[in-house]
Amino acid sequence: MNKKVVIVGGGAGGLATAKALAGTDAQITIIDKNNHHLFQPLLFQVAVAVLSPGDIAAPIRSIVGKQPNIRVVLGEVTRFDVNARQVILKDGSSYDYDYLVVATGIKTCYYGNDHWEKFAPGLKTVVDALEAREKILLAFEKAEIAESQHEIQRLMTFVVVGGGPTGVETAGALRELLNKSIEKEFKRVDTSRARVILIEALDRILCGLGPELSARATADLEKMGVEVWRNTRITCIDEKGVWMEDKCIETSNIIWAAGTMAPPEISSIEAEKPRSGRIVVKSDCSIENHPEVFVIGDVAWFMSEGNPLPQLAPVAVQQAKYVAGIIEREPAAGNRPPFRYKDKGNVAVIGRAKAVMQIGKFKIYGFIAWLAWILVHIMVMVDFRNRFKVLFEWRWHYLGNRHGIRLITGIRPGCRQGEASGGNQPPSNAA
Amino acid sequence: MNKKVVIVGGGAGGLATAKALAGTDAQITIIDKNNHHLFQPLLFQVAVAVLSPGDIAAPIRSIVGKQPNIRVVLGEVTRFDVNARQVILKDGSSYDYDYLVVATGIKTCYYGNDHWEKFAPGLKTVVDALEAREKILLAFEKAEIAESQHEIQRLMTFVVVGGGPTGVETAGALRELLNKSIEKEFKRVDTSRARVILIEALDRILCGLGPELSARATADLEKMGVEVWRNTRITCIDEKGVWMEDKCIETSNIIWAAGTMAPPEISSIEAEKPRSGRIVVKSDCSIENHPEVFVIGDVAWFMSEGNPLPQLAPVAVQQAKYVAGIIEREPAAGNRPPFRYKDKGNVAVIGRAKAVMQIGKFKIYGFIAWLAWILVHIMVMVDFRNRFKVLFEWRWHYLGNRHGIRLITGIRPGCRQGEASGGNQPPSNAA
Repeated sequence: MNKKVVIVGGGAGGLATAKALAGTDAQITIIDKNNHHLFQPLLFQVAVAVLSPGDIAAPIRSIVGKQPNIRVVLGEVTRFDVNARQVILKDGSSYDYDYLVVATGIKTCYYGNDHWEKFAPGLKTVVDALEAREKILLAFEKAEIAESQHEIQRLMTFVVVGGGPTGVETAGALRELLNKSIEKEFKRVDTSRARVILIEALDRILCGLGPELSARATADLEKMGVEVWRNTRITCIDEKGVWMEDKCIETSNIIWAAGTMAPPEISSIEAEKPRSGRIVVKSDCSIENHPEVFVIGDVAWFMSEGNPLPQLAPVAVQQAKYVAGIIEREPAAGNRPPFRYKDKGNVAVIGRAKAVMQIGKFKIYGFIAWLAWILVHIMVMVDFRNRFKVLFEWRWHYLGNRHGIRLITGIRPGCRQGEASGGNQPPSNAA
Repeated sequence: MNKKVVIVGGGAGGLATAKALAGTDAQITIIDKNNHHLFQPLLFQVAVAVLSPGDIAAPIRSIVGKQPNIRVVLGEVTRFDVNARQVILKDGSSYDYDYLVVATGIKTCYYGNDHWEKFAPGLKTVVDALEAREKILLAFEKAEIAESQHEIQRLMTFVVVGGGPTGVETAGALRELLNKSIEKEFKRVDTSRARVILIEALDRILCGLGPELSARATADLEKMGVEVWRNTRITCIDEKGVWMEDKCIETSNIIWAAGTMAPPEISSIEAEKPRSGRIVVKSDCSIENHPEVFVIGDVAWFMSEGNPLPQLAPVAVQQAKYVAGIIEREPAAGNRPPFRYKDKGNVAVIGRAKAVMQIGKFKIYGFIAWLAWILVHIMVMVDFRNRFKVLFEWRWHYLGNRHGIRLITGIRPGCRQGEASGGNQPPSNAA
């Protein structure tokens, strides 16, 4: 009997595991809430109308579904029963396994303030990005026909919460959208009075990189016109705007990039969870007492030299390949060599010809870092078609200063909380 | 004082009018429910996952908004007051004009059976196409995990209602999606048992073309595996499927391409309306008693040699240029030369290397007609970026037999009837 492998999540980690096991004698089932793999690092560019969702997503079936030993299931996992070795789905079906690979990724977290989501949606899924795009573009349109200066100012104020890579990249991209594409085409809106505010609770942005790069990124953002507010703690977000104690930035354009946590189904796995529900894994990426259960990617808490590994695609992919090797060769539990992460660096783009990058102790910024950002992201993308399309759109965007995908189609916030007619939910697990 | 021109609709006709008047002394306001121009003839390819919405749409502002004499307004027209020379919007604002160009296009019509829409949505807007795509792709996914053969058969049955160009093109494209991209990637679904049924009430499909081409299109479709049901009258559409008296095709995958009518705001214009609310126009494209009100494109009823002109983009564009000429030169009402349509032909694509085409009495089909279809559609597209992207996707699709944009993102039917939070409604007026 061939060993049964269930992989939960079709993100970077899940797909890399499936690919590494393609053609082996394992019987693989890959389960995801979505039918598509999403290249998360470029999702912010969908929100600012540079890319189409189709440019950075590809059907999981078209990537691995043709392999005879891989079955793709569109379904929502609600529970793991690691003792019975079963994965249970929302529709009641269950899948047995000999090996389980949990690669669900993480979702947006509001630290107990879930009611903020309505006003400050996150940026994790295709629908998130389309809704953000819709809201941003509608704000410009409403400003063009607004009556009062106060209302125009409110509509032209954009707040990004969270100074991590997503927040920094989104704030920079928003400012470029305002500075380049919007300015000429509106008759009444004065984009020089528009504000983009990036709010960070800590004393520096991009704290995953060194302080010099944080300073450089801050300087670059400020030169572009982004206000970087550090040491700023938000106390409330409501229909009026973003509150810090009794001070309020009036706006309805808020993007939340401040926190992540494990998706709810992870709670069914009993394990040590130091922060945000992420699961502590051992040196072989398996969990305590269950050498047949691996957790990889953003949802895993893998300690390395005193710190957890960063939540980056290369970590997930390297863990995936390592885990696939264990599953294929099946060494005894004590004989597994430990997983070692090879640092591929960390890069955040700020704008055209502006980025910051760190590989180990090596730091670069500016044009060279930006070229590296382009190169790395194109190389890492799963699908050739995606690579080509993104390159094409970037040529258009960065050389032509254009934001081509400025569509308001009537996908409206509020729909997501509506009655789902199908079993497919807005996703939270594309790693 | 410069003359004020209000154009309602940013489709082919409205945009061509605005472009023709750019740089003149007219003060132009172009009003559309959507912020984007949509290239309607390729919308069916969004529904079958060949193209992204961004490939066939472009912001109206980026096309004409940079012209100093053109103002773009995102807004929904609810009423025309041709006596007061005013256009009234949903938000209560109004726009005065010296000349009005009505180019709203048409919307889907259910001939008094509006409750069918829920089960058989039309294909007129970006949201329509995304919902159709979502539904089609979800049907495959559900079939892959369905329990009974009966349920699988129901999920793998697709009905297209209406044998006009949209219906024919959609049915052919659906069959290609099944035959080419889906087959290999599903383990349990047998696409050879899937059905695509095209239903037409008349005795032939594509009745805008000659009978030989109808026969050829029918033969091509049947060879591909589409069932063409002519002389078939639908009596009901409900949650079970499509009914013809007491016979039922069980399915939830229904696309309505059987009828169109003028959008509701057109009813405020008093004029002769022979069918579907379309407005009879005089030989100068103006309406009776109002030489300053022009109606062009799909919503206009222009008699030529005993028949109304067909609802095709070239008609709208030629009328637009003609009307712009009248507005610019302002000949006295009696001195306007009549508009004459120069027949640019009519083409419908059936599948790869299959199309039918008619220019006047000249008829072609097969590979040459297909090449002509590609050429014509690429040429007619407004935006260079769109042209390039569509060509790229077509290379991929037609040579590689791939359907790249197979995304299920959680835009769900039912949302559209939900509470809109913004002023923007799902559109119905992109001509």
